Amino acid sequence: MQTMPEAVPCVTEFRVRYAETDQMGVVYHANYLVWCEIGRTELLRRLGPSYAEMERAGVVLAVSDAKLRYHVSARYDDLIRVTTRVAQVRSRLVEFEYEIARVNADGGTTRLASASTTLISLDPEGRPRIMPAETLALLRSAHAA
Amino acid sequence: MQTMPEAVPCVTEFRVRYAETDQMGVVYHANYLVWCEIGRTELLRRLGPSYAEMERAGVVLAVSDAKLRYHVSARYDDLIRVTTRVAQVRSRLVEFEYEIARVNADGGTTRLASASTTLISLDPEGRPRIMPAETLALLRSAHAA
Amino acid sequence: MQTMPEAVPCVTEFRVRYAETDQMGVVYHANYLVWCEIGRTELLRRLGPSYAEMERAGVVLAVSDAKLRYHVSARYDDLIRVTTRVAQVRSRLVEFEYEIARVNADGGTTRLASASTTLISLDPEGRPRIMPAETLALLRSAHAA
Amino acid sequence: MQTMPEAVPCVTEFRVRYAETDQMGVVYHANYLVWCEIGRTELLRRLGPSYAEMERAGVVLAVSDAKLRYHVSARYDDLIRVTTRVAQVRSRLVEFEYEIARVNADGGTTRLASASTTLISLDPEGRPRIMPAETLALLRSAHAA
Repeated sequence: MQTMPEAVPCVTEFRVRYAETDQMGVVYHANYLVWCEIGRTELLRRLGPSYAEMERAGVVLAVSDAKLRYHVSARYDDLIRVTTRVAQVRSRLVEFEYEIARVNADGGTTRLASASTTLISLDPEGRPRIMPAETLALLRSAHAA
Repeated sequence: MQTMPEAVPCVTEFRVRYAETDQMGVVYHANYLVWCEIGRTELLRRLGPSYAEMERAGVVLAVSDAKLRYHVSARYDDLIRVTTRVAQVRSRLVEFEYEIARVNADGGTTRLASASTTLISLDPEGRPRIMPAETLALLRSAHAA
Repeated sequence: MQTMPEAVPCVTEFRVRYAETDQMGVVYHANYLVWCEIGRTELLRRLGPSYAEMERAGVVLAVSDAKLRYHVSARYDDLIRVTTRVAQVRSRLVEFEYEIARVNADGGTTRLASASTTLISLDPEGRPRIMPAETLALLRSAHAA
Repeated sequence: MQTMPEAVPCVTEFRVRYAETDQMGVVYHANYLVWCEIGRTELLRRLGPSYAEMERAGVVLAVSDAKLRYHVSARYDDLIRVTTRVAQVRSRLVEFEYEIARVNADGGTTRLASASTTLISLDPEGRPRIMPAETLALLRSAHAA
């Protein structure tokens, strides 16, 4: 429980890579899903040992739905800030919401995109299964926060 | 006009690349957006010379919205079939729908994912602008078909 | 043995994807390694059931060395032809050579890049191990051809 | 000139992304070229205003050769350290060398791969051209350091 206050919402920053641009001169749109995952895994990591144990127990979270809205294009070397929140928790699924922004030279931010993804918990054979009670409790406290 | 009957719906096939897999042993979810684009650009190419002229005239189509629903995971070396349709046409935007399936050894198919993307037409400075009348006519005939 | 004459050299063709370009307007250089793998796996597939059995037996081939020389840039929608050859076979490694070319509208080709990769055979624990005799025989006949 | 002492060698660190893994459970080998570029662009950035001016003057650096040797596989969430050095400077080309290592939990490092890339300076039409004198001077001082 003590790890949660840091986890909500989770803010991660990194710079746009050259490999992420396309010939239009901006970041290729599929890369925003990669950025969402960076934010999400950072949030999950901060949930602490319980989430790591869930993975060791063979429960994986697989993306079942994704929605993205693109507002302003990111460009090479932009400083990107992904803010990730737990939007919904049910016994077999968890939904995350993301705000993707550019951090400007003056410290202000410009919203680039917003997104959400739903993940379902699967057993090693790929069948939906209920998440461990401890993981659910952590995700719910992150949601409530 | 004579190119349209072939263009609707547009079917494209290719094999999953090793580089597209992740450590879960399946295709990384962001790659489905790349596959949608393969289907979409193939459909646009079949619209004929008018679309190519639109591009030369400096009108680009940028993705503003994307929605994906994942049903079954694709795996390395699967034969993938993307079926692309024009779902909506307005003066400044066009929406595409995609069905992504695996072609099985017996010739049957398994649905893997469905998706839609909305693209808006931009001028070289990145401002929304009306698509050329000829492009709109082609997209609308593709939609009606 | 009867599969080898088709396998040497192995020619594979595909089109450049939008996602493979960068803001310089050409294909991002790391993607050529992905293309080499497409050529290599196609060659290995044509080696027939023996290679598939090797994989099922838990022997994997991991890239240990790669060399690339870039001559001319590939661009979006170019038709790419990868020609793959077995350049060297030893009990624990195999070297492949690649010629990457653009197929022009007139059917002629322009050389874009040349490359080579060395792969070593590993057991499931990641230790080097001798390839199965049958796989070695197939690779050697591909090399000699 | 005052920026050079920090620039040589240039050390950059980041974490392995899930999207960078493949179904073998390790980082897909082409991604190491992306990491080399992260190290190189960071080094070039530290060269200061002169390099930025070179870019604005329309001189670009394009990769003409790449060599990679893979020692140990990187895995998801590993902390990666790229150490980049200027290995050779000539009027039309510059060669960089890279050591890619994993930073272990105890602060020690494990060497994962070593690489080198040669870049040639091009004008906006893609023809080789001599680098501006000031850029050459900076690269040479980085090399000597």
